[in-house]
Amino acid sequence: MEFSSKILEKAVEEMSQLPGIGKRTALRLVLHLMRQPKAQTQNLSEALMQMRNDVKFCKSCNNLSDSEFCNICSSPKRDTKTICVVEDVRDVMAIENTSSYQGLYHVLGGKISPMDGIGPHDLSIEPLVNKVKRGEVNELIFALSSTMEGDTTNFYIFKQIQEYNIKTSTIARGISVGDELEYADEITLGRSIVNRIPFENSLKL
Amino acid sequence: MEFSSKILEKAVEEMSQLPGIGKRTALRLVLHLMRQPKAQTQNLSEALMQMRNDVKFCKSCNNLSDSEFCNICSSPKRDTKTICVVEDVRDVMAIENTSSYQGLYHVLGGKISPMDGIGPHDLSIEPLVNKVKRGEVNELIFALSSTMEGDTTNFYIFKQIQEYNIKTSTIARGISVGDELEYADEITLGRSIVNRIPFENSLKL
Ligand SMILES: [Zn+2]
Ligand SMILES: [Zn+2]
Repeated sequence: MEFSSKILEKAVEEMSQLPGIGKRTALRLVLHLMRQPKAQTQNLSEALMQMRNDVKFCKSCNNLSDSEFCNICSSPKRDTKTICVVEDVRDVMAIENTSSYQGLYHVLGGKISPMDGIGPHDLSIEPLVNKVKRGEVNELIFALSSTMEGDTTNFYIFKQIQEYNIKTSTIARGISVGDELEYADEITLGRSIVNRIPFENSLKL
Repeated sequence: MEFSSKILEKAVEEMSQLPGIGKRTALRLVLHLMRQPKAQTQNLSEALMQMRNDVKFCKSCNNLSDSEFCNICSSPKRDTKTICVVEDVRDVMAIENTSSYQGLYHVLGGKISPMDGIGPHDLSIEPLVNKVKRGEVNELIFALSSTMEGDTTNFYIFKQIQEYNIKTSTIARGISVGDELEYADEITLGRSIVNRIPFENSLKL
């Protein structure tokens, strides 16, 4: 692409670093900003910087948070002995939207995926296992997507906490196998949490 | 969506102001930034701010530019008496990519579209007509997309400059009718400029 402005070209380049945003889309987006009041670009820039500088990972569950501990971990209303293990912050949001779960979460930050070079130590697994070791957990609910990577991750964690004799379960597969959790409709997702089954049972399928 | 962080929510909100970016896509994009080094977010924010503050509209052709006059208008190699009328900055880029045109441009900034509330006075039409009036133009090449709005805009300008007896042409319709200029392949687009036809002829079709 031939740019008439180097500054514009730089903005397109930075914008197209975002996943799924090609050069053409990036150009369309920044040209839109050029036609809007300056305040819109300023608000966007400042919101992104503030997010990257001030949003923290909850020290207990690894969820995104404005304070040291997230509002779920800090809530006196939650059942702190039940922990739902999810891959991603978006999964917490999806489950919270169903209003059918009162326990806490643990956000792994991904799935074990040798193909992508992601091993157990790249994920927040140790802090979770330590919670179990310290006797802070009655039940662990595995809510990763039912892909090979999800199953591998579930099993890896299960092996590490097996000896501590806590209850383990996986969310009921009302959700179609292979589907990402965050795209499930609320009713299906809510039901799959209520109808969760012992983890050992899921291994027999 | 239930956000665990107000700051994150704000970033998603600002991001989803961009055209074609829904809340879900915005969330995916900002979560990506959270996982990248801080420098990436900083570079993006700064590039957008610099663009919105420092990129100018060329005082002659209304193209985006880093200086008062764009590099095309400033070039001693261009034929300053031939002006190609386009809708958008992206059309200038598309035509420049073909390397088949040596004249200048005039960027209208849109098309006349009563449906969208865009009238002639919302576009950079007067400065173009003034150039013709001042005798600065030998030929005007209409290169708007061949939609109803494009044809209306062409005709509106044509009526205003008709009395000055300059040459007018439209790019040859090797490009399929109704297609956006910027998506045409370079060869077709280049050829359509070389084979341009007198504007009056296009009215007879
Ligand atoms: Zn937390
Ligand atoms: Zn110019």
